[in-house]
Amino acid sequence: MTSKTPSRLKELRQLMAADSIDAVIIPQTDPHQSEYVARHWKVREYFSGFNGSAGTLVVTATQALLWTDSRYFIQAARQLDGTGITLMKEGLDDTPDIEQWLTDSLPAGATVGIDGMVYSATATARLIEALEPAGINVVIDFDPARVWADRPALPQCKAFVHDIRHAGEDARTKIEGVLCRAGQKRASAVFISALDEIAWILNIRSNDVHYNPVATAFLYLSDKGSTLFIDPAKLTDEVTAHLSAHGVATAPYDSVLDFAAALPADATVLVEPARNAVALVNALGDRAIVANSPVAVAKAVKNDVQLSGVRAAMARDGVALVRSLIEIQRRAAGEGEPLTETGVCEILYRNRKAMPLFFDESFGTIAGYGPHGAIVHYEPTAESDVAVRNGNLLLIDSGAQYLDGTTDITRTISLGTPTPQQRTDFTLVMKGHIALASAIFPTGTTGTQLDVLARQFLWKNGLSYLHGTGHGVGHFLNVHEGPQRISFGSFTQPLVPGMITSNEPGLYREGVHGIRCENLVLTVKAMDTEFGHFLRFETLTLCPFDLALFDTSIMTDEEIAWLNDYHTRVRDTLTPLLANDEERQWLAAATAPLNG
Amino acid sequence: MTSKTPSRLKELRQLMAADSIDAVIIPQTDPHQSEYVARHWKVREYFSGFNGSAGTLVVTATQALLWTDSRYFIQAARQLDGTGITLMKEGLDDTPDIEQWLTDSLPAGATVGIDGMVYSATATARLIEALEPAGINVVIDFDPARVWADRPALPQCKAFVHDIRHAGEDARTKIEGVLCRAGQKRASAVFISALDEIAWILNIRSNDVHYNPVATAFLYLSDKGSTLFIDPAKLTDEVTAHLSAHGVATAPYDSVLDFAAALPADATVLVEPARNAVALVNALGDRAIVANSPVAVAKAVKNDVQLSGVRAAMARDGVALVRSLIEIQRRAAGEGEPLTETGVCEILYRNRKAMPLFFDESFGTIAGYGPHGAIVHYEPTAESDVAVRNGNLLLIDSGAQYLDGTTDITRTISLGTPTPQQRTDFTLVMKGHIALASAIFPTGTTGTQLDVLARQFLWKNGLSYLHGTGHGVGHFLNVHEGPQRISFGSFTQPLVPGMITSNEPGLYREGVHGIRCENLVLTVKAMDTEFGHFLRFETLTLCPFDLALFDTSIMTDEEIAWLNDYHTRVRDTLTPLLANDEERQWLAAATAPLNG
Repeated sequence: MTSKTPSRLKELRQLMAADSIDAVIIPQTDPHQSEYVARHWKVREYFSGFNGSAGTLVVTATQALLWTDSRYFIQAARQLDGTGITLMKEGLDDTPDIEQWLTDSLPAGATVGIDGMVYSATATARLIEALEPAGINVVIDFDPARVWADRPALPQCKAFVHDIRHAGEDARTKIEGVLCRAGQKRASAVFISALDEIAWILNIRSNDVHYNPVATAFLYLSDKGSTLFIDPAKLTDEVTAHLSAHGVATAPYDSVLDFAAALPADATVLVEPARNAVALVNALGDRAIVANSPVAVAKAVKNDVQLSGVRAAMARDGVALVRSLIEIQRRAAGEGEPLTETGVCEILYRNRKAMPLFFDESFGTIAGYGPHGAIVHYEPTAESDVAVRNGNLLLIDSGAQYLDGTTDITRTISLGTPTPQQRTDFTLVMKGHIALASAIFPTGTTGTQLDVLARQFLWKNGLSYLHGTGHGVGHFLNVHEGPQRISFGSFTQPLVPGMITSNEPGLYREGVHGIRCENLVLTVKAMDTEFGHFLRFETLTLCPFDLALFDTSIMTDEEIAWLNDYHTRVRDTLTPLLANDEERQWLAAATAPLNG
Repeated sequence: MTSKTPSRLKELRQLMAADSIDAVIIPQTDPHQSEYVARHWKVREYFSGFNGSAGTLVVTATQALLWTDSRYFIQAARQLDGTGITLMKEGLDDTPDIEQWLTDSLPAGATVGIDGMVYSATATARLIEALEPAGINVVIDFDPARVWADRPALPQCKAFVHDIRHAGEDARTKIEGVLCRAGQKRASAVFISALDEIAWILNIRSNDVHYNPVATAFLYLSDKGSTLFIDPAKLTDEVTAHLSAHGVATAPYDSVLDFAAALPADATVLVEPARNAVALVNALGDRAIVANSPVAVAKAVKNDVQLSGVRAAMARDGVALVRSLIEIQRRAAGEGEPLTETGVCEILYRNRKAMPLFFDESFGTIAGYGPHGAIVHYEPTAESDVAVRNGNLLLIDSGAQYLDGTTDITRTISLGTPTPQQRTDFTLVMKGHIALASAIFPTGTTGTQLDVLARQFLWKNGLSYLHGTGHGVGHFLNVHEGPQRISFGSFTQPLVPGMITSNEPGLYREGVHGIRCENLVLTVKAMDTEFGHFLRFETLTLCPFDLALFDTSIMTDEEIAWLNDYHTRVRDTLTPLLANDEERQWLAAATAPLNG
């Protein structure tokens, strides 16, 4: 890729000069503000060669810079090498943000171009607010992809219906709920661009975005009738009948802006500015009622059908993981075919694919051996692949989309005998994982408040990780969803019973090893006292942590008891599902109680 | 007071009717957004009879309601009893906020009145934003105090200069710093209404507000000259000469709005909307550049002269506390004159007043015996006073203004033999206090992130406290200052070396007892590692915690070690300053090491 970047940037700069644009900002997202996007929308990757899921490219006549977060510092440095693009490491004290950099670098009167179909209304407003005082103009109809000659087409996978046996609530009920909440904001209609929200409301899925089982579309809901803007090629008779039965008509995907602009002048349309393109919000004009999504919380709070599906999916996923770990350990120890990182990914895929209701992986498996484990979102490729054998740590972050639930798990295992530093590092991470997993907290508590529980032991030792501790997880939907998070920053969404969130502290020593320990946890009720209603987490993921990596001398009795209780539950749940004595014996040993 | 409330509300309602106002909102603040206000501004107290420091009254033609926070639930219930005013308990799930209540209770077309001289621009904008969609108008020039016949005059205490030996930085340097930061926001002038900010910048103090050594004034700083708007009666020759020497002219206090309105059309005046009256911001009109205070962080970060002053003040305060605790314990045990809660306040005042550089108390002493300790901001009065004797807990929250620093400390002591529940409750509070006191955290961390460290052990047991864990503390200035806080909510100000913050978790069992354990802590550097720069807290307050109340069976070795280290430091610092063997023996026993 790198060799093509200079010529592509040259074509882009010719376009900028023709349009009198001094700087262009190119995020990698789509008109739906997706985190993972179809190939059609990988504009930032096209121009920069950097293929991480997060990152923004800025190009001026003389400079090109790519901002990305700590998960991608090492990968981006490698992929940008030789392109002339400067890596800007987000989150470090001396890294200006994009707005600050533009203000410092451009003269008053300069013009910044963005594509208003992929830039959200919120991001656009923030940009204008930051640049306006410096006399910098923002043009919102500059589409850099016009110079992308061989651009892939929009996705055309068929949509399908997500069975009510798994979804637990029918589309009509969900539509009514969304319109009811919109009514509380004095809106009689809602525009929704977020693909996972559309999939959840309508109980439809597709395969448009790798790992995210969504269908590319816009959805307009109103008390006078609803319309799904979608490529007709994606519709089957089953889906068309399903939509029609739930009161939803269809229209072409690219007619959405004209439709919005043609709505009656007195229409009142709720639109979430952070998850809708500024071009769409501007087309609505005064008809837009800007408010938080009336979908996000309802989607995040899983119903009982979804939860029993997730629990079943976790058990099947646990069996696939046990089977995979046995094979990985055996081959790393020199038994059978030699193993590499991509081989680890294949083992996981093969064992999960054999499970009932498997649909796809939920993201690209991260299998990082030794120093590769310190590259937070490392996905092994043919070029980067290394042997996986006894002598270092292996970090495996993987997950699956099952029709009854989405999984996401990270285990860090020692191949061979661990060093004292590996054990100390691992145990400090696990102390944070356990502190969060066993927290009790009053209703109204946010993940921002709890985040430090997972970090405190690392911080005491001058250690740290820069990513969030937990993200929401969809139900047979995106592995990253909001609105709750467990992270630094100001996230005001309280944790609510029924929400599924990851618990994944980590520690990354560049050039040495990486550690992350991740389970998914469900928020449930804990107790009611005279001081209020209290909540806790129920851990959903079922897979042993590597006993060889615990240093019990720095663990409390409560921490050891938590681990032993968890391992007992893993053993009791998975043992009846295993295939043979070898698997049962491995699991018994892997879940044996630790003594303090 | 309660008997006068109905007639006062009647007069207010006549005024409302005459001005076509359907509801009035009466906060208890002043044109400077002070937390504690001079008697002239106690408008909410005048109409409601409730004299807590926090609370807002809403009056309609038929209803009156008072919102206040958990510190005042019990006190407000008592003071509002029989007035017909409904108590609205902030922070409870089912309590609507004022805006919500008004939206639910008033018809479209109704008018809400506020006094734009005491309502901040931020609060006004939020109010209008909340009420406008419901068709409710807001009138910002309705002053309910017009019917207050015997209203006290504005404060007229003399101002005085705070010696540079204590302040550590001269006024001209601070003015230049403020204007420099304003310049970064493209403003060439600044309007400041916050009294503690004005006192800090100019190194002047006064005694206008009980406990807060501030002078009532507005300050306009500009690169063309600065003006202090202040009652001439407050000026002495010394102060006038000091101001003049630092380039600050004076003008009458009540000329500030005319001055703002008469500024040149091209003036650029930074004004913080949260701490300036909407009337002043509106008078500036397009000349206002709305931004965060360019004073708050600089004031919160203490210089070395201030810090050595605070350390010296803490030692003197510690001696006064030791002396007070000895007398309290002796008299509670039946030796000498019987003791009451107001007697406790007198003992503390007498011992502090005898110390060099004492100026005043920093707030009204809270001395709550037994059930009174559960009233979070209880100040004993002649009517509420009870005997203090062996048999229950005594909570004492007090502090002093010394010329070289401000103190604020809470100790909960057992008089007689504590019960198991008292010891468990106390130890759970202290575990949180110690967890926060011994935290290490990277630069950029906010108090919001750390807050849960102080709450986690209470929450695990279904216990909770509803107030913040820590507030900033001024230097010979307000005992509550920002911008940092350790609290739930979204406070984005990181903790910075040099900031002083309280560490005061608590637990309040209504009708039984109250516990709070408070020290002031200074943010200092901890260590630099490859993972970043780390900070920690240095505890400044010097006074023993009651050893009889610790249950070491629920403490870790690290917690016990922290307590023993702290007590060693208290003993080593205070012993040389004590007057006699009785004091030294008492302190030695009170700081003896605990064994695990």
